[in-house]
Amino acid sequence: MKLGQATIKDIARELNVSSSTVSRALKDYPGISFETKKKVKDLAEKLNYRPNAIALSLRKSKSFTIGVIIPEVVHFFFSTVISGIEEVAFKNGYNVILCQTNEKLEREINCVETMLSNQIDGLLVSYSKETTDFSHFINLIDMEIPVVFFDRIPNIKNAVNVTVNDFSGGYQATKHLIDQGYRRIAHLAGPSNLAISKKRKEGYLAALSDSGISIDENLIVECPSANEKESFEICLRLFKDPINRPDAIFAHHDIVAAGAMMAIKSLGLRIPEDIGVVGFSNWQFASMIDPPLTSVLQPGIQIGEKATKILLEMIQNKDINHQEISNVVLDTELLIRKSSVKNY
Amino acid sequence: MKLGQATIKDIARELNVSSSTVSRALKDYPGISFETKKKVKDLAEKLNYRPNAIALSLRKSKSFTIGVIIPEVVHFFFSTVISGIEEVAFKNGYNVILCQTNEKLEREINCVETMLSNQIDGLLVSYSKETTDFSHFINLIDMEIPVVFFDRIPNIKNAVNVTVNDFSGGYQATKHLIDQGYRRIAHLAGPSNLAISKKRKEGYLAALSDSGISIDENLIVECPSANEKESFEICLRLFKDPINRPDAIFAHHDIVAAGAMMAIKSLGLRIPEDIGVVGFSNWQFASMIDPPLTSVLQPGIQIGEKATKILLEMIQNKDINHQEISNVVLDTELLIRKSSVKNY
Repeated sequence: MKLGQATIKDIARELNVSSSTVSRALKDYPGISFETKKKVKDLAEKLNYRPNAIALSLRKSKSFTIGVIIPEVVHFFFSTVISGIEEVAFKNGYNVILCQTNEKLEREINCVETMLSNQIDGLLVSYSKETTDFSHFINLIDMEIPVVFFDRIPNIKNAVNVTVNDFSGGYQATKHLIDQGYRRIAHLAGPSNLAISKKRKEGYLAALSDSGISIDENLIVECPSANEKESFEICLRLFKDPINRPDAIFAHHDIVAAGAMMAIKSLGLRIPEDIGVVGFSNWQFASMIDPPLTSVLQPGIQIGEKATKILLEMIQNKDINHQEISNVVLDTELLIRKSSVKNY
Repeated sequence: MKLGQATIKDIARELNVSSSTVSRALKDYPGISFETKKKVKDLAEKLNYRPNAIALSLRKSKSFTIGVIIPEVVHFFFSTVISGIEEVAFKNGYNVILCQTNEKLEREINCVETMLSNQIDGLLVSYSKETTDFSHFINLIDMEIPVVFFDRIPNIKNAVNVTVNDFSGGYQATKHLIDQGYRRIAHLAGPSNLAISKKRKEGYLAALSDSGISIDENLIVECPSANEKESFEICLRLFKDPINRPDAIFAHHDIVAAGAMMAIKSLGLRIPEDIGVVGFSNWQFASMIDPPLTSVLQPGIQIGEKATKILLEMIQNKDINHQEISNVVLDTELLIRKSSVKNY
């Protein structure tokens, strides 16, 4: 795929008309004046515009198939998103092609190529933890292939993003712990290259700050791989020092919270009497563990549904105003359970 | 789709040649003698054989796409199977189209139609709890579309099935509880129309019988919807009678086991001291709940990988001996944790 050649958007900008007008003019569609067609075609020739074969074939033959690229299928949150995607796609007569990256950039690039060669009508993406260069997605957007990012959203131009309010989720979780009387609240943070991790941490910091509690950097630890073993080990270290010991944990992920709970119990400390714990995402097991885990509900099914509805609008109506839908933020909700409430 | 018309298999049987020979003769492929071609074509005409348009297009244009029909995506076991499927498909250059039935027969039939209209090269299926008539799948097999069933396998002719040894899983679980000194072992069973439920229950009954423990029908209760609320309510009833109270639970599903554990705790009974608990499938949370849950490991990723490898062989090599691969049974493994061991 060659980047840097003139796109329909360049021509549209230069002539101050819509991309759709340029596209239809180049294809000699009816409803466009002769003058406009001539202006568009002349400029296209001048700018050496060549329609991309894959993009063209996409436009010609609708495949009624949308692609989904996610890090992992065996992941409660992503499985709920897939379920929401599949429901909306099915109701609208679209198929869902699924590709998992296993958190690898190389595999992700491969997935994008697979999707292209399958002439998908549009793509839903949550990118891998390794991804910091988004050119494989930018190419798609430049080719005018509808793309909607969800949960893990990139900071790129013209991206359409659906996510939850991770800042407010982190704020709610931390404020709740403060209201319960906890003061030395540790944060087990997510990988720093993900916006969701940053925002959850910002919410945590803001809640502390709003309550006049000073930030202790020793209490902020990254748990990037988000498995319970990693967080178990990290928490054993964190709780080793009885003087500076945290009295609560806000984990960026329920699995991380579960690992913390195992560490706390293994040290003979009680939850919530000695240490309060709050997780994030409300995994299925959160209500089944002992004590039940307070968690920030991240509505996966709704994220999948919303992202798919937007994608289908983009597919069916090319003239849609992307600015209006470029950042959809769904609300989180704190589900309070025994792990964080001393007098439950 | 019209059933009952002559198929390639009918012609092959009559002439005592392979289906592949008939197929190639009808298409005038090279490498088939003139005599054979004539015999095949004459018989095809006599039997009023008409190639099925969809089946033909499937044969002509390989789509390098396989379909997956499952009851639910938000289900730990199925998500592990999908992950295994996706891995093998991806490595072999095949795409995966996903369709969930939400346990509804009508939706399942709809999914099959979607798959057909998408010219999938083959299909992987775990059918819904509502499905007792399998004609929508039998049609596919008659059309010579490769189909592999996994986990929930039907009792139909020529089906290729991949499953785990549910009998031995049920036997291992129950025998382990007996070895730990438990005697009044209740079984929270799955829906009776699923072979997996029957086999797990048969394993339970055989283990009791082999140990000379008489069967008490009051201790066998169906928990068909497999959610923790249902099993919580059922267990409260089961434990109401202090005389006939069970001293252990073998649940057909970890979520059911988790509901049972919540009920046992809510009654002030201790696990494993008063009541031992064993689940099935080894969901991710099994090792994280308190006490950690003994469970029968059902290797979802391997099931997905094995089923997909077989499907791809069937797609790539039509002459494969289906009898040899018709029933692949993978081993289960009992993962012993504290919930069933008094002196852990």
